[in-house]
Amino acid sequence: MTALRGTLSPLVRRSALWSLLSSRIRANNNKTVRSLSQQQHGGAQGTSVLLTGTVDRFGGVTVKLDSSSFPSEIGENAFSELLRDSLDQWKAEGKVAVWLHVPISLSRCAGAASRHGFTFHHARQDRAILALWLGEGQSRLPGFATHQIGVAGAVVDESNGKVLVVQDKNKTKNAWKFPGGLSDPGENIGATAVREVYEETGVRSQFRSLLSIRQQHNHPGAFGMSDMYLICRLSPLTYDINFCTQECLRCEWLNLAELAKTNKTTPITTRVARLLLHGLEHGFDTIDLALEEIPAVYSGMFYQLYHRRLPLELKP
Amino acid sequence: MTALRGTLSPLVRRSALWSLLSSRIRANNNKTVRSLSQQQHGGAQGTSVLLTGTVDRFGGVTVKLDSSSFPSEIGENAFSELLRDSLDQWKAEGKVAVWLHVPISLSRCAGAASRHGFTFHHARQDRAILALWLGEGQSRLPGFATHQIGVAGAVVDESNGKVLVVQDKNKTKNAWKFPGGLSDPGENIGATAVREVYEETGVRSQFRSLLSIRQQHNHPGAFGMSDMYLICRLSPLTYDINFCTQECLRCEWLNLAELAKTNKTTPITTRVARLLLHGLEHGFDTIDLALEEIPAVYSGMFYQLYHRRLPLELKP
Repeated sequence: MTALRGTLSPLVRRSALWSLLSSRIRANNNKTVRSLSQQQHGGAQGTSVLLTGTVDRFGGVTVKLDSSSFPSEIGENAFSELLRDSLDQWKAEGKVAVWLHVPISLSRCAGAASRHGFTFHHARQDRAILALWLGEGQSRLPGFATHQIGVAGAVVDESNGKVLVVQDKNKTKNAWKFPGGLSDPGENIGATAVREVYEETGVRSQFRSLLSIRQQHNHPGAFGMSDMYLICRLSPLTYDINFCTQECLRCEWLNLAELAKTNKTTPITTRVARLLLHGLEHGFDTIDLALEEIPAVYSGMFYQLYHRRLPLELKP
Repeated sequence: MTALRGTLSPLVRRSALWSLLSSRIRANNNKTVRSLSQQQHGGAQGTSVLLTGTVDRFGGVTVKLDSSSFPSEIGENAFSELLRDSLDQWKAEGKVAVWLHVPISLSRCAGAASRHGFTFHHARQDRAILALWLGEGQSRLPGFATHQIGVAGAVVDESNGKVLVVQDKNKTKNAWKFPGGLSDPGENIGATAVREVYEETGVRSQFRSLLSIRQQHNHPGAFGMSDMYLICRLSPLTYDINFCTQECLRCEWLNLAELAKTNKTTPITTRVARLLLHGLEHGFDTIDLALEEIPAVYSGMFYQLYHRRLPLELKP
């Protein structure tokens, strides 16, 4: 869904008319836009003061209020009337949805839009995106991101069967866990594991495979959204522990067999410790999900794909 | 991070003072809150007109503007001054962050807050959450959900080695793909696969395993966020195709060996077709990630965990 910057229709940008509109907005005359619109409807030029946007292939209109020509001083009531008239037009044209991009400084326009049924689709940093479904039946607009991604790294020292574990300062006290944390935006799963292990323990490591995926909804730490928690297998590059005292109470290289048996841990850590023990004994290929980078179909970018390894002759 | 509903301090709720404040707000006297605050600072009661919130264990303050006692008619400038004075107080108290919950109808308060450095943390439906970091260094506030979850279902008819595939109407034309789509909020991976397969093809199926996980950033269909795309193995419960003509051009039961060889598909479909062929020949246990539901540690809820199956004696 791409769109150019929305703005008022060309007519408005004519300086005389525009300064008239601006001055009336300043005078807090909330009828201005409406009447200006009506005047122009009957005029020779057949244009009116309406919001303009770009139309996507689904029949949705996108209007961006951060165009340089958009009057940043516009009041809540004036924008409400402008939007109402624009909505009348879009409905008459059979548009199915309106996307409204609102810079945070113009948030009063979001308040005005809510009077017409707009709700937040999402907001980030200095911009909110509102949406209104105009089509038949329930909204078919796609939702926004629903999951945070948490990644832990199980750093296994194959020479002695030990694994790097920490005890959290805040959450699960006295429970051994693999160090980990939330992915930064745009960060790959393996990169999060390596970064978090280093930040929490001071140990450098490298990504080997993905071991497990957990999905949990209404997650307490995810602002009511869902959490996807992935545990990776890593190999140590350094061994000296220098753990973060802000986050951790303890940090140790613990025997995998001990971690698999102890009660001082979480069920998922026990499970992965048992997987790792099995891998130590029978080869990690019995527990790994291998990673490959594959070119994305359209974007010229790459994506990361994980699945069980196939015999070589089957790979493309 | 739990918090009670924020409101103005108790003093403000006293009716006489409150109606004074309200009437001054209505008169658009933007100095009101400030001067009222200053009057009270020196007064016998030692209280001032400030926003109050709840403090979490990290030293962050949460203020919710949807309390019934919050003056919904408050203007942008008046709120800006109220917030400025409140920020002075919170900084003096050593608070590290402020979370501001703003109902969409009061969005002008978000605009006012942006003057003080607040940005959007996230927004959904009829509410935006803004945040401001007051602590030292870079913000340590947790981010919001970064990933949308897309799930496809590979419905395999083991009796004849065929799999259910569709050709998209909009995106990858003339390319056979497994039916699928975005998870609804709170929906489990397997449930999305079964639902999407039914909606697109009319075929009922049941979840068997997870086969692959793909992570892709800056995803064109994810509003600039990341996409996690999972392919599940399903077993058919019905076989008659009744495909959705809005979404699909074609829908067929295609021979897996043919799907693994054809150029009329996407690389990830080829890859999973080869995995499935291998599974058909050597048993699906050679390609599956098994699902288990496990009780969550604290919440009394369950989560869903996927990993490779272990020999039985190793399970807890």
